[in-house]
Amino acid sequence: MFDTFGTVVDWRSGITAAVGEFAAAHGLAVDPAAFADAWRARYQPAMHAVRSGARPFALLDVLHRENLDDVLRAHGLDPVAFGGAELDELSRAWHFLPPWPDSVPGITQIKAGYVVGPLSNGNTALLLDMAKAAGLPWDLILGSDVTRAYKPDPAAYRRPAEYLGLDPGQIMLVAAHAADLAAARDAGLATAFVARPAEYGASRADSTAAEGTLAEGWDLNAISIVDLAGQL
Amino acid sequence: MFDTFGTVVDWRSGITAAVGEFAAAHGLAVDPAAFADAWRARYQPAMHAVRSGARPFALLDVLHRENLDDVLRAHGLDPVAFGGAELDELSRAWHFLPPWPDSVPGITQIKAGYVVGPLSNGNTALLLDMAKAAGLPWDLILGSDVTRAYKPDPAAYRRPAEYLGLDPGQIMLVAAHAADLAAARDAGLATAFVARPAEYGASRADSTAAEGTLAEGWDLNAISIVDLAGQL
Repeated sequence: MFDTFGTVVDWRSGITAAVGEFAAAHGLAVDPAAFADAWRARYQPAMHAVRSGARPFALLDVLHRENLDDVLRAHGLDPVAFGGAELDELSRAWHFLPPWPDSVPGITQIKAGYVVGPLSNGNTALLLDMAKAAGLPWDLILGSDVTRAYKPDPAAYRRPAEYLGLDPGQIMLVAAHAADLAAARDAGLATAFVARPAEYGASRADSTAAEGTLAEGWDLNAISIVDLAGQL
Repeated sequence: MFDTFGTVVDWRSGITAAVGEFAAAHGLAVDPAAFADAWRARYQPAMHAVRSGARPFALLDVLHRENLDDVLRAHGLDPVAFGGAELDELSRAWHFLPPWPDSVPGITQIKAGYVVGPLSNGNTALLLDMAKAAGLPWDLILGSDVTRAYKPDPAAYRRPAEYLGLDPGQIMLVAAHAADLAAARDAGLATAFVARPAEYGASRADSTAAEGTLAEGWDLNAISIVDLAGQL
């Protein structure tokens, strides 16, 4: 099962492009990539509110939309100045992110011998739109709205195993992020690290290299999903 | 979204074959087809106990396994005389049912323009095994253990729409059974009838013909899933 944002799809390029179109349409002087990074930076804090119990479970779609309002305000822009439907559409860019070039061929190859699916904080509708648009050949999609848990909550890793009638160790998480893999391992899953040095663009390659160093403890280490398929 | 047992897969042939192997291995004088019919006859009463609230939600795997014990007893056989693991394996025949010849090509054709998935009383693990073995190219699988409801409970039809962020009327149920389609229509779904005159074998073709007569009120009527794909 695959982490999606960053591991299977290139969220930063997709969101940067969508923000760029939005900014051009409204004549806004914003740096689309910086806006994308600021939007993404609000991702973990928003889920933390759910994980900590500070708020009831809310769809990732809702969190992304709330965070968009926050990022607009942080850029000195009033969300009310834009049509709500237009902001909803911009926020839906998270449903239609481009895959890394090796994702579809690698997952297709793995699917021949294994069950493949996302293990993502995305909700089911988001993951379904992503799969249809990117051509991701999942066997099944169990979104965070099905498991009712956000990673790295242990339940987010264990509930898919329960639905599939498997022991946690019969599932392998594939991810580009050490924290995700560490939590999966703690929950009993097998782990595969896939390096995505370009996730945050060339300027932050050094921080990703540091994460690569952390990869020593995983069951498998790969430089792409096609590489992982060969190892499997 | 597709009803599975009877509509997409030929449960009677699959279960008859599995029972036949089991009977041969144990030298039992049972009619495998009659045994399959008796097992299936306990399907609705078992789910009714859940739908009525008489018992908490239980996986269809559990109900099938309990019903197997009942059918054995009804045939004068003591379940305890067999190994529990062996009966578990026989019961898992419900996970590996053969598709009707038009199911895979028809669903594949429909998938090019629509989201396709099961809307079945099967649990997720069952539906996943079925899909992998039969080659059913579902976009996603939301089993009855995700919706926590058994058809014809209205929730069984409405919760998939909620997960997908759709109005019920944006989903079409494809089924070979009038009662299933009527409940789906009452829940707001669109409906497509697919005739499966061989579901119960040649001897009961007349009762299926009667169900065909009831098909007048559905949005679409088809003689196969390939035919349905052409109409869509």
